[in-house]
Amino acid sequence: MRQWRFVAFDDGFAGFKSENACIVGCITAGTYVEGFLFDSIEVDGLDVTSKIISLVLKSKFRNQLKCIFLSGITFGGFNMADIQEIYEKTGIPVVVIMRKIPNFDEISKALKNVSETERRIEILNKAGNIYKISEGLYVQTAGCSVEEAKLFIKASIVKGNIPEALRIAHLVASAIIYGESKKRA
Amino acid sequence: MRQWRFVAFDDGFAGFKSENACIVGCITAGTYVEGFLFDSIEVDGLDVTSKIISLVLKSKFRNQLKCIFLSGITFGGFNMADIQEIYEKTGIPVVVIMRKIPNFDEISKALKNVSETERRIEILNKAGNIYKISEGLYVQTAGCSVEEAKLFIKASIVKGNIPEALRIAHLVASAIIYGESKKRA
Repeated sequence: MRQWRFVAFDDGFAGFKSENACIVGCITAGTYVEGFLFDSIEVDGLDVTSKIISLVLKSKFRNQLKCIFLSGITFGGFNMADIQEIYEKTGIPVVVIMRKIPNFDEISKALKNVSETERRIEILNKAGNIYKISEGLYVQTAGCSVEEAKLFIKASIVKGNIPEALRIAHLVASAIIYGESKKRA
Repeated sequence: MRQWRFVAFDDGFAGFKSENACIVGCITAGTYVEGFLFDSIEVDGLDVTSKIISLVLKSKFRNQLKCIFLSGITFGGFNMADIQEIYEKTGIPVVVIMRKIPNFDEISKALKNVSETERRIEILNKAGNIYKISEGLYVQTAGCSVEEAKLFIKASIVKGNIPEALRIAHLVASAIIYGESKKRA
């Protein structure tokens, strides 16, 4: 079987009061690492959607990508990824991977402390329903069904329950910020 | 069999006139990616040896590393890694991986255009003999024999003839500099 290609994005961000943030995309064919994408993003900005779209559209693998995995929709603080827009502009389905259901009360409260609160809440709502796939694995999707998302995830796992591309993107992004990879909290 | 852990370092560097350079270390257990190390280095500086030593000694994997693979000994221009010093200060064997025999006449000529030429030539000489392992694969070693280096390389390959950790370190480092990974020239 010809293997599906995936790209997965995670952010490098040292948290509250940090001035720098970046996104790392890892591209795999099935579970074999084929390459990486990298860009800086603004902390609490609103540029992550356009940066992801641009990295994907410029990539030499753009025509072979079966799905874009995202580690949640908030990057570099509250820089929020609009998954509908990413799907519309790239034509590639987006699957958001979460280990737990986000606390929307807390997020809505925190969003009042950053600019353009309403636009961020709109992006949050546009991400749509959250579906439980298994214990510790929840998804949102744009451009594909939950059943398709399950197939993509299954085809992309080496160990554990998250796509290999997302696991490695996280390891790279945290090393860029901290000097050595950190496990996910 | 319990799998050996390896770390492999490559540099991110855009070449002549670029002001920024970095090193990326990829840690694998056999061929499975376990984490990354990251630091900036000076273009044409002499800090890569101490940066590699520091990253390795601070790493949570330091006691399990069987060998340190390096992609050549020049990083970020002519920032040169002293493989004897890395071995002495970490206690971990170093294996330098090259696709071809470096052109020492060209290097010696170029070194006259950077500071501390003599020290750099000394580091170059300390790296020792170059051994051909196979077509397109040459090594230098510190702290292990060429036979041991062959075993390390064999245990660390997924496809092709270079260690998986080194292949992935190169993909990450080039993406940080160019936005997307570049194949090795």
